[in-house]
Amino acid sequence: MEVRVILVEPKNEENIGAVARVTKNFGFSDLYLVNPPNIGKKAFSVASHASDVLSACTIVNSIEEAIADSAIVAGTTSKPGISVNKHLRMPFFSPQELKKKVEDKRGIVSLLFGREDVGLLNEELMRCDLVVCIPTSPGYPVMNLSHAVAVVLYELRDVGADSGAVSGELPLACLEDKERLFAHISMFLDEIEYRDYKKEKTALMLRRILGRAELTAREVQTLRGILRKAERKMGEDEP
Amino acid sequence: MEVRVILVEPKNEENIGAVARVTKNFGFSDLYLVNPPNIGKKAFSVASHASDVLSACTIVNSIEEAIADSAIVAGTTSKPGISVNKHLRMPFFSPQELKKKVEDKRGIVSLLFGREDVGLLNEELMRCDLVVCIPTSPGYPVMNLSHAVAVVLYELRDVGADSGAVSGELPLACLEDKERLFAHISMFLDEIEYRDYKKEKTALMLRRILGRAELTAREVQTLRGILRKAERKMGEDEP
Repeated sequence: MEVRVILVEPKNEENIGAVARVTKNFGFSDLYLVNPPNIGKKAFSVASHASDVLSACTIVNSIEEAIADSAIVAGTTSKPGISVNKHLRMPFFSPQELKKKVEDKRGIVSLLFGREDVGLLNEELMRCDLVVCIPTSPGYPVMNLSHAVAVVLYELRDVGADSGAVSGELPLACLEDKERLFAHISMFLDEIEYRDYKKEKTALMLRRILGRAELTAREVQTLRGILRKAERKMGEDEP
Repeated sequence: MEVRVILVEPKNEENIGAVARVTKNFGFSDLYLVNPPNIGKKAFSVASHASDVLSACTIVNSIEEAIADSAIVAGTTSKPGISVNKHLRMPFFSPQELKKKVEDKRGIVSLLFGREDVGLLNEELMRCDLVVCIPTSPGYPVMNLSHAVAVVLYELRDVGADSGAVSGELPLACLEDKERLFAHISMFLDEIEYRDYKKEKTALMLRRILGRAELTAREVQTLRGILRKAERKMGEDEP
């Protein structure tokens, strides 16, 4: 699935620059502008290191041109439907649901974002295959244009070929190593003459704390190193 | 769980206004600014209907003041760790993982967002219980400040909404007690003659492990008791 961002008659060139930036942040590059204002220095300044995406954007005169080769057209709105009875904005999907709907499809998914003040017109929303609504607070549901793009692209970041997004996950310690650590801790409590009646309880507390922390293999080794070092220190001072 | 947004030395008042807006969009209102620039018309114009959040923000001179009453301090960075060997930025959590970690806790979760140009300094990140990194493209990982806030708050939007649920959760340790514990740990590493060149790194690793574990007040006391007991044992055996 390829993702295309389409801004429909945006008024503010800073917003266009901000959208170019976040488009690149999430690994996308296909940006269309329908009847945009003049794009000048301000837009490029806000786009920062995404001037390539901004320079390469496609400017068209109508939504039809922008979505011509799309497989799915999703229109965004901050006003979700309230009546089951009216189909214009109902049913609507969250960005997460949109992801699930498009992730195993092929072709271009076009995301339509409307004007800063009035959003997408009813006849434009009618043209869409589905309606997407970001779950915002009823107290102030209307997001800044580039924020809305940021949230939707964040959800879609893994869709499409090249997502280089990395995860911070490290190999967790294996059960055996952790058990050795817990046995070592228990021995250590003996060595420091921790009171018997509290020992078991405290060993369990340490197991809970370290269990919650989801230790990596390396961390287990370092923790055991600290215990050994303390033990050596205690032994060294023995008469 | 209550969510607090903390901007550390933001330079651009438009960004501050944009952050106020998205804070309100996702139903939050607790905004702190550490050494911000003058907040004028521009900021309020960008904040739009969130001028109430912007007006009510708390301005402080140091991160310490901003996080004083926090149960969990999460620092954001666009530079995740790459080496298993370094604990400053590793392991790191995605906004989604952060949500899972905090959603059933009690207290304030402080989200630190750094400067537009250099982000959070190493010593500021060190101060955090955990590190959050938005999964962006390696081609252009650095997001606009308010976009980063938008994505993290989008993930946390349901946190704190319904705190009626009863769980096995205990009150988390306060910052002050945790800092005392970390200072004690650092002293303990000296006492066991832990090698100097590794000491700082290992202290940071322990901070990361214990930060992830989200210690309760009681656990912090028991951990300090274990350290005291071991210290007494070492002292007792001294010649």
